[in-house]
Amino acid sequence: MVEDTRADVVVVGAGLAGLSAARSLLDAGVEVLVLEARDRVGGRTHSVEEADGLVIEYGGQWLGPTQDRVLGLVEELGLGTFTQYSDGDNLQLTDGARLRYQGAIPTGDPVQAADLIDAMVELTLTCMEIDPARPWDHPLAAVLDSTTLETWISAQPYSDGAKQWVRTLSRAVFPAEPGEISLLHALFYFRSGGGVEKMIGTINSAQETRISLGAQHLSHGLALPLGDRVRLNCPVTRIDRSHDDVVVHHDGGTTTARRAIVAIPPVLAGRIRYSPPMPGVRDQLTQRSFMGSVLKVHVVYARPFWRDAGLSGHVTADTGLVQITFDQSHPDRTEGVLVGFIDSHLGRTASQMSEPDRRAAVLEDLVRMFGDEAANPIGYYERSWIDEEWSRGCYVGMMTPGTWSTLGHALREPVGPIHWAGTETAVIWNGYMDGAIRSGEDAAAAVLVDLAAHGLRTEAAR
Amino acid sequence: MVEDTRADVVVVGAGLAGLSAARSLLDAGVEVLVLEARDRVGGRTHSVEEADGLVIEYGGQWLGPTQDRVLGLVEELGLGTFTQYSDGDNLQLTDGARLRYQGAIPTGDPVQAADLIDAMVELTLTCMEIDPARPWDHPLAAVLDSTTLETWISAQPYSDGAKQWVRTLSRAVFPAEPGEISLLHALFYFRSGGGVEKMIGTINSAQETRISLGAQHLSHGLALPLGDRVRLNCPVTRIDRSHDDVVVHHDGGTTTARRAIVAIPPVLAGRIRYSPPMPGVRDQLTQRSFMGSVLKVHVVYARPFWRDAGLSGHVTADTGLVQITFDQSHPDRTEGVLVGFIDSHLGRTASQMSEPDRRAAVLEDLVRMFGDEAANPIGYYERSWIDEEWSRGCYVGMMTPGTWSTLGHALREPVGPIHWAGTETAVIWNGYMDGAIRSGEDAAAAVLVDLAAHGLRTEAAR
Repeated sequence: MVEDTRADVVVVGAGLAGLSAARSLLDAGVEVLVLEARDRVGGRTHSVEEADGLVIEYGGQWLGPTQDRVLGLVEELGLGTFTQYSDGDNLQLTDGARLRYQGAIPTGDPVQAADLIDAMVELTLTCMEIDPARPWDHPLAAVLDSTTLETWISAQPYSDGAKQWVRTLSRAVFPAEPGEISLLHALFYFRSGGGVEKMIGTINSAQETRISLGAQHLSHGLALPLGDRVRLNCPVTRIDRSHDDVVVHHDGGTTTARRAIVAIPPVLAGRIRYSPPMPGVRDQLTQRSFMGSVLKVHVVYARPFWRDAGLSGHVTADTGLVQITFDQSHPDRTEGVLVGFIDSHLGRTASQMSEPDRRAAVLEDLVRMFGDEAANPIGYYERSWIDEEWSRGCYVGMMTPGTWSTLGHALREPVGPIHWAGTETAVIWNGYMDGAIRSGEDAAAAVLVDLAAHGLRTEAAR
Repeated sequence: MVEDTRADVVVVGAGLAGLSAARSLLDAGVEVLVLEARDRVGGRTHSVEEADGLVIEYGGQWLGPTQDRVLGLVEELGLGTFTQYSDGDNLQLTDGARLRYQGAIPTGDPVQAADLIDAMVELTLTCMEIDPARPWDHPLAAVLDSTTLETWISAQPYSDGAKQWVRTLSRAVFPAEPGEISLLHALFYFRSGGGVEKMIGTINSAQETRISLGAQHLSHGLALPLGDRVRLNCPVTRIDRSHDDVVVHHDGGTTTARRAIVAIPPVLAGRIRYSPPMPGVRDQLTQRSFMGSVLKVHVVYARPFWRDAGLSGHVTADTGLVQITFDQSHPDRTEGVLVGFIDSHLGRTASQMSEPDRRAAVLEDLVRMFGDEAANPIGYYERSWIDEEWSRGCYVGMMTPGTWSTLGHALREPVGPIHWAGTETAVIWNGYMDGAIRSGEDAAAAVLVDLAAHGLRTEAAR
């Protein structure tokens, strides 16, 4: 059915950013319409309850301290949470050895541990010099932006094992090969999350807390009061703009509004056709933002057998497809679940394998980590975010080398009546659910100021 | 008017690549339809004859030795050519000094000259190790792809002036800041053109020959026999594909065909919606390809006054917006014309200036190069390729660091009935008009093999 609709503000994308923006606007008495390409809300969060009641978290899932906006939303919606299991020892598979350790940084090999502590301190101290709202203002921005993180790693006097672990960290955090991103982007991102250690650990860090029903319930909760203001299956193909309105063309018809908030990753925003076209610098920015490459797998066992051996389930490895795992078991249930990430170039490789081959490779990795019992799961679930048409990668869009320093200002700057949101535009916790919510709230606030400044009455006021 | 059309093969893009593909197919008895977004053919070539008969070359314009396909087409179409003016001295403005030199590499400062010869030899010898059809096969591909060209430049024991000149070369050749591209991409590109010196000089190099009527006449000549098989003003928005046909949706209707050749830059190909969607690796490749940033200006004077001072009109400078110029005068005419390029980050800056401010800055640059006479032109023409909706940059799309080594194989690999062309897919003279023609001919040949292998009769045979 093709339908022409009107609203004060049209929001493109019903992920956490778009829904947060819509909610803020609605609360301020502004009529909104949210257009979502998928048949569901939640964007890069997707929680599916299987027939037996087990929740599979195909997308974003963790919360941690200082992520105040998402924690606030959890509380407001009354969502139950639990703490990421982290009893026992973590495991590092490095150069054929199996080293046990506790905490965020492997300490099994003392030489390597010293190197890694040095790397964490160095990166954290340096990142604190970056203003995450304006990385291009750093006095050495041009230099930091024309050097890759890989060049930095290679130049350090660290052991090979330590260097390899920092590369694994890059794949796990961004997720990108350290040769794909500049040192400036890496430092910006670490700064945005409050420092490297805050991002990589479990307890007191970004992998601390999970939502019992699944993280997508944040979006379900935001969408509920919006009712039929959220339209699913409406991919936006084109946005016509004039000085003070927009006409948004989508699979369900057109929507005319005073303002638009485009709350999708920059690379996907660049694929919408605009009339008149976007200014050159905005378009070139979207050409220079790319999505990370990741597959996420859940492997379900009758019980969390690794705990018998005093293992936490958290492993980092330097071989295999799955080089990072966590215990994904739910505290109220008896199954043992491991979650594994196939990151960066490994994700690209894995996305080209057949499902049976990929599953066999994943189980081989888990056997190497946890022993023969890992070979016989009772359930296996996977999601290639690279192959998701309306995300085209996860967890986040990143800037290519040279982009922050010369085009970064075009990331958030509205173009006429069009504003931008999405976790890629967040200053704090960029790339995380918390950043998505912040970006949506910030864009809504800017739109309200914009509307007020132009004396445009809202639909509701007419 | 919306119209449903049929063809054996539909070609997206009526630049040199698409038209060359269509011509080859038509010659083989295959019915083609070419869909072009613009209101003209020629893509990144655009030659406009002004009222007084002066031809302005807004886009690609030069041919040189070993560019056999484009030289062959010139001959076939009977187009007149002339040799790029290069009498007299070139000029290098470096660190406040004005140094005269001849040939491709500045020799005014002997220390710098030694450095630059070393750089040219080093880059040329190294690039010859790369197979331009498979850069990812180089034994050090991963290392070369995770290091930027800027990191390489900074690490050389060259004088500051020499380093600056290599950076200017990067801006002029790609055009990109050396911090935006990997060493692997740079070496691939140099190799594809036959070595650095082959690319940067005038005589016996890639800036040797021009077409009298303008380079766009190559496309006019290719389009002529295609007649109404070329449809203008038909931006393609979506391609549905099955095992053995495609339905291409465009502003003028739909076209159903056995095969499609998408002959536009990868980043723009990624903005078309595909159903079913592209495989992840193909999509991630298009996310990691970006267009260079360049504005091209023509400044017209009553006569080529710089020749009086024994100057060739070719300048490289280390300050200003315009850091590279050539004598653009036509041998049959009396005007003196200078062509200037505003490249890379300078192009992005210039595209945000008002036209009068930009013009003033350009003239200031030319006065610094050629003296006060340069302040009073009789004509000024400019084109920001960054702001061209259907190119979104020039001269060429480049790979971001890390892309060739892990995703390069997805550049040319057909996806079902969809084949890829465009100068970005060329193995030889990638980024040049010659590469565009080669890519179109290669794609047409692959489609013919594909059609023959699948026993699909052509429209003409039915």
